[in-house]
Amino acid sequence: MSSLITMDDLSNDEIQEVLETAERLLPVARGETYLPLLQGRILGNLFFEPSTRTRMSFETAMKRLGGDVVNLGAVASSSVVKGETLYDTIRMVDGYTDVIAIRHPRQGAAQYAADAADVPIANGGDGAGHHPTQTMLDLFTISQAHGRLNGLRVVLAGDLRYGRTVHSLAHALVRFDCELVFASPSSLRMPEEITSDLQKHGANIIESEDLLNHIDDADVLYMTRIQRERFPDEEEYKKVSGSFKLTARDLANAKQELIVMHPLPRVDEISPDVDATRHARYFEQAFNGVVTRMALLCKMLDVEVPANIGGAA
Amino acid sequence: MSSLITMDDLSNDEIQEVLETAERLLPVARGETYLPLLQGRILGNLFFEPSTRTRMSFETAMKRLGGDVVNLGAVASSSVVKGETLYDTIRMVDGYTDVIAIRHPRQGAAQYAADAADVPIANGGDGAGHHPTQTMLDLFTISQAHGRLNGLRVVLAGDLRYGRTVHSLAHALVRFDCELVFASPSSLRMPEEITSDLQKHGANIIESEDLLNHIDDADVLYMTRIQRERFPDEEEYKKVSGSFKLTARDLANAKQELIVMHPLPRVDEISPDVDATRHARYFEQAFNGVVTRMALLCKMLDVEVPANIGGAA
Amino acid sequence: MSSLITMDDLSNDEIQEVLETAERLLPVARGETYLPLLQGRILGNLFFEPSTRTRMSFETAMKRLGGDVVNLGAVASSSVVKGETLYDTIRMVDGYTDVIAIRHPRQGAAQYAADAADVPIANGGDGAGHHPTQTMLDLFTISQAHGRLNGLRVVLAGDLRYGRTVHSLAHALVRFDCELVFASPSSLRMPEEITSDLQKHGANIIESEDLLNHIDDADVLYMTRIQRERFPDEEEYKKVSGSFKLTARDLANAKQELIVMHPLPRVDEISPDVDATRHARYFEQAFNGVVTRMALLCKMLDVEVPANIGGAA
Repeated sequence: MSSLITMDDLSNDEIQEVLETAERLLPVARGETYLPLLQGRILGNLFFEPSTRTRMSFETAMKRLGGDVVNLGAVASSSVVKGETLYDTIRMVDGYTDVIAIRHPRQGAAQYAADAADVPIANGGDGAGHHPTQTMLDLFTISQAHGRLNGLRVVLAGDLRYGRTVHSLAHALVRFDCELVFASPSSLRMPEEITSDLQKHGANIIESEDLLNHIDDADVLYMTRIQRERFPDEEEYKKVSGSFKLTARDLANAKQELIVMHPLPRVDEISPDVDATRHARYFEQAFNGVVTRMALLCKMLDVEVPANIGGAA
Repeated sequence: MSSLITMDDLSNDEIQEVLETAERLLPVARGETYLPLLQGRILGNLFFEPSTRTRMSFETAMKRLGGDVVNLGAVASSSVVKGETLYDTIRMVDGYTDVIAIRHPRQGAAQYAADAADVPIANGGDGAGHHPTQTMLDLFTISQAHGRLNGLRVVLAGDLRYGRTVHSLAHALVRFDCELVFASPSSLRMPEEITSDLQKHGANIIESEDLLNHIDDADVLYMTRIQRERFPDEEEYKKVSGSFKLTARDLANAKQELIVMHPLPRVDEISPDVDATRHARYFEQAFNGVVTRMALLCKMLDVEVPANIGGAA
Repeated sequence: MSSLITMDDLSNDEIQEVLETAERLLPVARGETYLPLLQGRILGNLFFEPSTRTRMSFETAMKRLGGDVVNLGAVASSSVVKGETLYDTIRMVDGYTDVIAIRHPRQGAAQYAADAADVPIANGGDGAGHHPTQTMLDLFTISQAHGRLNGLRVVLAGDLRYGRTVHSLAHALVRFDCELVFASPSSLRMPEEITSDLQKHGANIIESEDLLNHIDDADVLYMTRIQRERFPDEEEYKKVSGSFKLTARDLANAKQELIVMHPLPRVDEISPDVDATRHARYFEQAFNGVVTRMALLCKMLDVEVPANIGGAA
C-alpha cells in the first residue's frame, strides 16, 4: 500500500488488519503511553477547503506518534492564489514531507495528487468523491462496539443524496454483508446508481422515508445532517428535516447494543438528551478518527506497530 | 487541581508553589536546557477570538517541555460556522488532546468548557470574565523583581473599567496584602462593585484621576491601554488619554526598584524612552508568560517538575 | 554569524561551508535519517505577508532537525492590527523563541528586526530588499548540479526589474565569477544601478531582449514569472510575456548539463513538457530550500553538524 484514495485500495483483510492495529494503539491515542514510531517523519496537511475535525485528527495522529506536521494554511493566502496548479503545489509539498493528507473540493483531486507525488497521499475528502479515512473510523467505531463488522443491521439516515460519507460507508458495509436501511426524505434519497450497484454486489437494502420504524431492529443508527440549502423554501425544509431528528425517547425500544453515530458537526438532528444514553457514540467516533489515522499513517509509511504496546503509563 | 478558570481555583500556597516551579523552569523556557516533561502530551488551542501573545506563549510553553499543540484555527473556517455548539466542539477536541487552552468572547465560556470536557481546561480569557494565566504571569513578574508579593504598593493605571486584566490582578494582589492605587480617568474608573468588594476583603485602596502623583511611592506601576472607542469624540479621548501616557521623565523620582508593567500590546501609553530605563519590565513580563504557563501546564497535567534542573546546556 | 539579513553577511568561504553542510544534511531532509540537532529549540515564524514555500520550508527544516516552530499567524488576526509596532512584536517573539524567520513587505524590516532582537533573525524576504535564504538555496541547487559555482554561464530571464530573487542571485554569482546573461523585455530590464554595480565588481554581463538565442551556451537558465500587473494592457502583456515562455523544444540544443530553475510558483512561463526533461530542477530547487535552511539554522544557532551523518535509515 502507498496512497489511500478510496476504500477500494484496501482489501477486507487489510481493513481488519488496520482496525486491529488501531485497537492496539488506543493507549497511545489517549496519551497514556508515549510511542514515537513516526519520530522524524512529517505529514503535509493540504486542506484546500476547511475541515476542522479531519485536519485536527490527522495532526493529532501524527503528533501522538512523535511525528510532526506542516500545514499549507489558508488557501486564500497560499501560492494557490498566485495561479499555482495543484500539480506544482503537490510537487513542492512532496519535497517537504513524508506523507500528505489532502482535502479538496474537486472530485478526483486526491488521485491526481497521488499521481503527481512521490510520497503517499491520504485522501481526506475530495468533493463528491471519497473520504476513506472517515469510512475507516466509522468501521472502527462499529467494530469496537459490536466486536465484529459482519452481518450487522445498519440504518443510514438523513441526507443520503449528497453525503459522501454515507456513500463510502454503505459500500464498505456491503463488503462485510451488513443489511442496510436507507432512511431519508424522498428528495434526499440515496442515488439510484449507488443503490443498484450495491444490490448487484448482493446487498440486502431497505429504502424508507421513515426513520422511527427502523430503529428498534438496528445495530447501528448513522445520522447525518440535512442542510437547509438543499430545500427550495424554509417550510419544506422544516417539514422534512423534522422527521429526521432523533431524541432519547425515540430510542426507548432500541436494542441494548444499538449505537448512534454521526460524522459531526451536528446541528439539531440529534437532541442533546441522546448524549447521555448508552447508545451515543459520536464523540467516541470523533476520537476514533485519531487512532484510526494513526494506524493508517503507520501503514502508509511502512512502519510496523508493535504487537504489545502496554497500558497506561 | 484540574482546570484553571479563575484565580479562586488556586490557594495562596498554590500560587506561591506555581511561582517557585516557574522560577525553576527558567532555563528551560530560555532554551538553555532541554527537559521534555510533557513529551507525548498534546495541548488543544481553542482561540475563538485572536490573542497573539496568549496563544503563542501557550504554544511555546508546551513545546519547550517536549509536548505538542493542535490549533482549532480561525473560527471563520472551523466547524463552528457550520453551527456546532461550544459543547460539541469541546467534546471533539477533548478526544484529541490532554489539556485545552480556551479563549472565548463570552463570559463564562471557560467554565462551561470545563464542565463539558474530560481534560483540564486553562482559561485564556473569557470576555469580561477571567484571565488567570495572565494574572499568574503578572504575579511572577512582580515576585521576580521584588522577591516577594506581600505588602507592595501597586499602581494600576489607565482603563480600569473594562480591563479584565486589572480586575483579576487587583483581586490577587489584595490576597497578598498589597496597597493599591487605582489611577484612571473618571469615566474609566474601577467598577464600584469591584472596589467595594476588595475593601470588604480588607484592601487599602486609593482612587485618583491623577497618575503622576502616585509614581514616586510605587513598587509596581501597571499601565494599560486606553481605547479610543471608549470615548464619544476624539477631543475627549485626546484630553483624557494624554494624562495616562508614561515617559522616562515621569520616572525621574521613582524608587530604584519600581517596575513598570503592561500586558501588551501597547500603542502609545508608554513612550519608547521608558524601554531603556531600569524600570521597564513589560517585555520580560511577556516572556514570563511562557515560564508561568509551563508551570501551570505541568500542574494541570499532574507532572512533577524536578527540584534541580541545572543551568545552561 | 548571528543574523542573516543580506548575502553580504556571508563570506564566500562561509557560503561554501553552508553548502557543504547542507549536502551532508540531505538524508535528514529526506527523512531517511533522524538527527535531532535542534531538539528543544524554537523558531518563530513571523510572516507579515504570506509566502507558502518559504514558510513551509523553514518549518520543515526546523522539524526535520527535532526543533519546533511557533507561528505569528495571519497578521489580520494578530496584535499587529491593534497598532503594535514591529519593534514590540519582535521583542515579544524574541522572548518565546531561539531564532526568528521574518517576511515583511517593507524593505529594511529584517535589519530593523535584527537590531531589536536578542535572538538571530533570518530574513525571509523584506519587500524590494533581500531574500538571502532563497539565494542560498539557488546556489546550492547550482552547486549540486555542476559540482561548483565558479565560472558558470547563467541566464537570468523574465522580470529582472522587480524580481528581488534575481537581484540577490546576480550579486552572489558575480562573487563566484559567473558570466551573466540578463534576458528580459525592455520594460522589465535589470535596473541600471544594479547592472553597473555588478560591472564595477568585474562582472561579465550580456543584456538581451531575446531569450532563445542564449539557451544553448548556458549552464543555468533561471526563469522568473512576468506579472500581468506590470503592463498597461493585456495586448502588451501577451506580446511580451510570450517570448519568455519556455518549452521543451527550446531546449533541443541545450548543453546536456544545463539546468532550468525557477523560484516558483510558476504560472505559464515554463511549459509542463519541460518537467520531464533532464534539465528541469525547479522542484528539486524547492526541496533544496529545506536542506539549505537546515544548514543555515544550525549555523545561526551555533549547532555543529556532524561530519558523518550516515545514509538511509
